[in-house]
Amino acid sequence: MEFSKPLTVTPVEQIPGMLVVDLPVHGDNRGWFKENWQREKMTALGVPDFAPVQNNISYNLKAGTTRGIHAEPWDKFISVATGEIFGAWVDLREGPTFGNVFTTHLDASKAIYVPCGVGNSYQALEDQTAYVYLVNEHWSADAQSRYTFLNLADETSAIEWPIPLDEAELSDKDKKHPQLADVTPFPARKI
Amino acid sequence: MEFSKPLTVTPVEQIPGMLVVDLPVHGDNRGWFKENWQREKMTALGVPDFAPVQNNISYNLKAGTTRGIHAEPWDKFISVATGEIFGAWVDLREGPTFGNVFTTHLDASKAIYVPCGVGNSYQALEDQTAYVYLVNEHWSADAQSRYTFLNLADETSAIEWPIPLDEAELSDKDKKHPQLADVTPFPARKI
Ligand SMILES: Cc1cn([C@H]2C[C@H](O)[C@@H](COP(=O)(O)OP(=O)(O)O[C@H]3O[C@H](CO)[C@@H](O)[C@H](O)[C@H]3O)O2)c(=O)[nH]c1=O
Ligand SMILES: Cc1cn([C@H]2C[C@H](O)[C@@H](COP(=O)(O)OP(=O)(O)O[C@H]3O[C@H](CO)[C@@H](O)[C@H](O)[C@H]3O)O2)c(=O)[nH]c1=O
Repeated sequence: MEFSKPLTVTPVEQIPGMLVVDLPVHGDNRGWFKENWQREKMTALGVPDFAPVQNNISYNLKAGTTRGIHAEPWDKFISVATGEIFGAWVDLREGPTFGNVFTTHLDASKAIYVPCGVGNSYQALEDQTAYVYLVNEHWSADAQSRYTFLNLADETSAIEWPIPLDEAELSDKDKKHPQLADVTPFPARKI
Repeated sequence: MEFSKPLTVTPVEQIPGMLVVDLPVHGDNRGWFKENWQREKMTALGVPDFAPVQNNISYNLKAGTTRGIHAEPWDKFISVATGEIFGAWVDLREGPTFGNVFTTHLDASKAIYVPCGVGNSYQALEDQTAYVYLVNEHWSADAQSRYTFLNLADETSAIEWPIPLDEAELSDKDKKHPQLADVTPFPARKI
């Protein structure tokens, strides 16, 4: 992991509204410290003032654990506390960028802002990877009826998972999502 | 760690305004998932609607790493992503509870709400412990002039650190804080 980078925010060309955030991580004799999300500094650099109401953590015991692809009806700000992930995002919003793909590695020195309607997925590249994120709507079991799902092994997106999916730990639910051709696009958002 | 506890919020008698939050952690074949902070459910149970503007993570390489005691001019909502801590809090607000102490263990299934002016400290009990928290004011190097500090080895509070401090990793700064008798209480907050 790279320490002491300047805070920068870079738009993802393929997926409008998506942002890559480089985070300064301060290392010392104890370990490290980071401002994982900082409203004032980040909004000044173009991160939306997205008003989080929920902070979630998913913990992955084993490298290879893979989750997704879920497009949810809220925005997310994602990073990791420990470990490293390969993240993959597929634009599932109806419109000209439907199906566009972006992938990158995230460690604790990098975050991603994912707008509502973009399919989100990741694979843990280390054992004991803790994935942390903020969202701006409250989840409920019910809200899942407003998710749009895509199969991790979708042949059109052809995501090159570092660890093959047949060696990866998945949820039963995530094994059953449709291929891109069968996805109903996430409805365009009112502005 | 205990899984699937109901979400509960318990006031800390010794330190008014401080809360212990038991968090439901959902375990499965991949690891686990938790709502670390959830505005709606938690405010309904008495956690203040504290409007976080910053999400911080401190990572501790080695068990024994100890940080504190810092009373800051903002409220905090604290838990861990990986590992376990022994947390110790000393009320440093001017008034009848000045000097009161509360200690407890935190793993990922437990969080603590710490009001402004309460001295905060912790010791990592496992290697690679990631401590995550939300605060409702923006930090600046400058803001440290409004902190109130107390020595981790203060003889009045007499915190029983599970790992003796002389075997623990500390910052140079944290070795120099005053004993309780020499602390200027944190000024009472305007309501
Ligand atoms: C998303 C969410 C889930 N849950 C509960 C429901 C389940 O008991 C357990 C795991 O939920 P799952 O839906 O299987 O979680 P997972 O497949 O990891 O997917 C969620 O978490 C992922 C991160 O792990 C996100 O990237 C996904 O977008 C999100 O949908 O947590 C909550 O209690 N609150 C939540 O916000
Ligand atoms: C608190 C804070 C610190 N920093 C920077 C300053 C330093 O380069 C580095 C570490 O700061 P320190 O002040 O040594 O961090 P630490 O001793 O861990 O204490 C802070 O972090 C603790 C958790 O680790 C909190 O419990 C304390 O209340 C808080 O003051 O991070 C930030 O960039 N933003 C911050 O919000």
